[in-house]
Amino acid sequence: MGSIQEQAPVKKLMQLNFFDMACAGSHMPYGQWKEPGDMAQFKDRLEYYQWLAQLAEKGKIISIFFADVYGGHDVYGGNMDVMLKGGSNVGVIDPVTIVAAMAAVTKSVSFGITGSTSYIAPYILARTWSSLDHVTRGRIGWNVVTSYSESAAKAMGKDRVPPSHERYEAAEEYLDLTYQLWEKSWEDGAAVWGSKEQPDTVYDPKKVHKIEFNGKYHKCSAYHQTHPSPQRTPVIFQAGASKFGIEFAGRHAEGIYTDMQDRPSLLAHTKAVREAAARNGRNPADIKFFAAVTPFIGRTLEEAQEKYHRAKKNMNGEVSLAKFSAYSGVDMSQYPLDEPFVFDGNTTSSNIITGVVNSMKAMFDKFDGPVTPRMFGEKMSLSGFAPVGTPEMVADAFEEQFNETDIDGFNIVYVSNPGSYEDVVELLVPELQRRGLMWQDYAVPGGTFRENIHSKPGERFLALDHPGAKYRKTQNSAANSHEVTASSA
Amino acid sequence: MGSIQEQAPVKKLMQLNFFDMACAGSHMPYGQWKEPGDMAQFKDRLEYYQWLAQLAEKGKIISIFFADVYGGHDVYGGNMDVMLKGGSNVGVIDPVTIVAAMAAVTKSVSFGITGSTSYIAPYILARTWSSLDHVTRGRIGWNVVTSYSESAAKAMGKDRVPPSHERYEAAEEYLDLTYQLWEKSWEDGAAVWGSKEQPDTVYDPKKVHKIEFNGKYHKCSAYHQTHPSPQRTPVIFQAGASKFGIEFAGRHAEGIYTDMQDRPSLLAHTKAVREAAARNGRNPADIKFFAAVTPFIGRTLEEAQEKYHRAKKNMNGEVSLAKFSAYSGVDMSQYPLDEPFVFDGNTTSSNIITGVVNSMKAMFDKFDGPVTPRMFGEKMSLSGFAPVGTPEMVADAFEEQFNETDIDGFNIVYVSNPGSYEDVVELLVPELQRRGLMWQDYAVPGGTFRENIHSKPGERFLALDHPGAKYRKTQNSAANSHEVTASSA
Repeated sequence: MGSIQEQAPVKKLMQLNFFDMACAGSHMPYGQWKEPGDMAQFKDRLEYYQWLAQLAEKGKIISIFFADVYGGHDVYGGNMDVMLKGGSNVGVIDPVTIVAAMAAVTKSVSFGITGSTSYIAPYILARTWSSLDHVTRGRIGWNVVTSYSESAAKAMGKDRVPPSHERYEAAEEYLDLTYQLWEKSWEDGAAVWGSKEQPDTVYDPKKVHKIEFNGKYHKCSAYHQTHPSPQRTPVIFQAGASKFGIEFAGRHAEGIYTDMQDRPSLLAHTKAVREAAARNGRNPADIKFFAAVTPFIGRTLEEAQEKYHRAKKNMNGEVSLAKFSAYSGVDMSQYPLDEPFVFDGNTTSSNIITGVVNSMKAMFDKFDGPVTPRMFGEKMSLSGFAPVGTPEMVADAFEEQFNETDIDGFNIVYVSNPGSYEDVVELLVPELQRRGLMWQDYAVPGGTFRENIHSKPGERFLALDHPGAKYRKTQNSAANSHEVTASSA
Repeated sequence: MGSIQEQAPVKKLMQLNFFDMACAGSHMPYGQWKEPGDMAQFKDRLEYYQWLAQLAEKGKIISIFFADVYGGHDVYGGNMDVMLKGGSNVGVIDPVTIVAAMAAVTKSVSFGITGSTSYIAPYILARTWSSLDHVTRGRIGWNVVTSYSESAAKAMGKDRVPPSHERYEAAEEYLDLTYQLWEKSWEDGAAVWGSKEQPDTVYDPKKVHKIEFNGKYHKCSAYHQTHPSPQRTPVIFQAGASKFGIEFAGRHAEGIYTDMQDRPSLLAHTKAVREAAARNGRNPADIKFFAAVTPFIGRTLEEAQEKYHRAKKNMNGEVSLAKFSAYSGVDMSQYPLDEPFVFDGNTTSSNIITGVVNSMKAMFDKFDGPVTPRMFGEKMSLSGFAPVGTPEMVADAFEEQFNETDIDGFNIVYVSNPGSYEDVVELLVPELQRRGLMWQDYAVPGGTFRENIHSKPGERFLALDHPGAKYRKTQNSAANSHEVTASSA
């Protein structure tokens, strides 16, 4: 048995994740629903989700992530007309209701499900996610969101959305409480189901404990209702990039979905989060980053370019503007859609925040000549990391982006559906595998999300340096210790 | 086309419903988990739920009802020890997470899912149930509960559970709000998906409306997030029998699950609820009652009796007492379990409510000689409608109970699992069908819950006299009008 230093360094493999939103329509402004055979209208059917899960598993995609929001994007014009008309982020299906059907037809692909810390009682969310982890046999992640929008607040009968720092402070408590429900309430071995010593016992009451939590934002006095699921705590994901989001991610996240696409931003963001992790006593490498990418893949360059141009033609610039308005808080409908628009922080809105001003400026710098709001909207959604080409060309782009940033994989944004997903599985994945960039099969086929994301069989539970792990009584489990795993290799 | 009077009266068919609770264990105190081959430990697996759904569909069972609670039964001894040890009502799986997998392997069986009006935001519940209705293609009911227990309140961080009348007052508002989200927010025809007139429109914004609700208990200003599901409003079920529960049922319920088992109680309860319906301008016959029954069916009488005696032997009387304590609020652990116990309203508890005193007295009247609390507990769960015999004998009992009360069907309580369920499907259903008491097939195979519960193709939506129907703009839909259906037959 050699020490860890003597072993050859393990090459980091690239992970691919599918990005979707459970809604009858699209969550992106590509407007592809008009193409013949597009699946947009069938996204309220189980058949779609079961097909997607099976395709992902065929392509050894680690997981499928479902974005989610409450309310809707109603800043643009003060209503949801543009989003409704464009079929974007509307017609929403609660993702917790569809996962079981996807799990029933697969064995290894995992699922990242968004859940809000602002509007669901922690006791209920803990039960729902434990249930999802049971029925998927450990293939569940929780994308923690604090729900930033006024429309969500109003849907819940609140007058306003609390400021970001307050939402994150409440979320800190929320996670602390859910960790206790997941990790502390039920000890390992609580399930007896009759033994020589305890012939009449199903669950040993001595090993099941009531959680008493009395915080500023959350209170709970209860036993966790669900017995321990395969992972206990679902894999914790996070997507926020505000300064509070970064600190929160450093403390809690095991995975990050980021929509940043240019290398300087990605390098800065991964560095900031990994530093926050280190400050919190965690191994920075334990946080896995999935960066957004919108690939256009063809068997020939011409085919790929044709797909890109069709996407551009179908692109609904006004939906893009309406989403921008929701995220920035600036109602862009105040500017005539097809008239030249001179960007100026003062003329747009005095409320506009600096970050938004900067990203708008960067966007406008890409134009030559006059820009209309519609052009701006169209540009916005196709200006990120969107490689166009043959499988080899797109694999080159993925490889370069992967090597020159500190990410762990990609969050695949679809444009056409089923085309974009199929192209990744049929064309890109084989090329990435041929290059040794991607696994040939799941690290732990039939295993849990956490085992696969760390490529470590047995790594079912939160790492010992994670803040949730301190509540687990059986912390010395060999299967879950980095040290033991490394030295026994 | 004859008038409705000229038609032969339609014989009311008996409906069967399966009663379960999504928990790794049992929701009844029968203690059958010790029997070889019992499924109790596998009730955290999808395989169990998919098997159950397929078996139910094979037996033309109209629906599977999942009971649910938050918190747990912790009045007895001030903790959950007895419930945990007995594996009853613990190890709970959130039922909303399992339905899709059951729907994916069936076409006609429906699902009644419990949801609380006290701890889930109406906007969220409306979205979740709409989603369930979409993914099941209209096979969803909502069993409305107000959550009576202190343990649920404390799990949610509340100091106390509000009194019954206050919970029901809040539930009235809650239903009014969810009806508006389901029936009024999206008009029929809102989904365009491109037409000659509106080539760029997915959802017509003119047909989607924001709901503004400003009540004493609930507020909401939002568009319903989910486009109309096959039934819009799920089939509304209710199970409470308090005076507030009866009024509430009269106004809202389309189905009732009742645990009453003796004929006088059933006759009084159905009468009270149907009268409440009439007072609210509704057709009393539109409310379908499913009464609890615990059948023991054998190919021979001896086999059935053997099943009954095994159930009696396995029965965990203390679990039964702990459940009784939770429902009544009286901690029965204060009386030695195996010492004679003289029942006296004063000696038990001054807080004991009259209804509980009466039901305890009725129970005690069935004993000759001294009674211990354990004996009381054991008696309690086997004293209801529990016919024991051959398929013919049990069918006789079902037929008599059906004919001599005003119920519409039975809620089958399992004892052994899978045995109890299989016996109903394999042995009892064919006998009921042979007698013409039960349908040969679903009235509307592949149809919605509401169509099947009313045996009327096209009856997908709330009846016009239901309080939720007033919010639907397209009320004059021929398919959903009683009058038109009757006169066109």
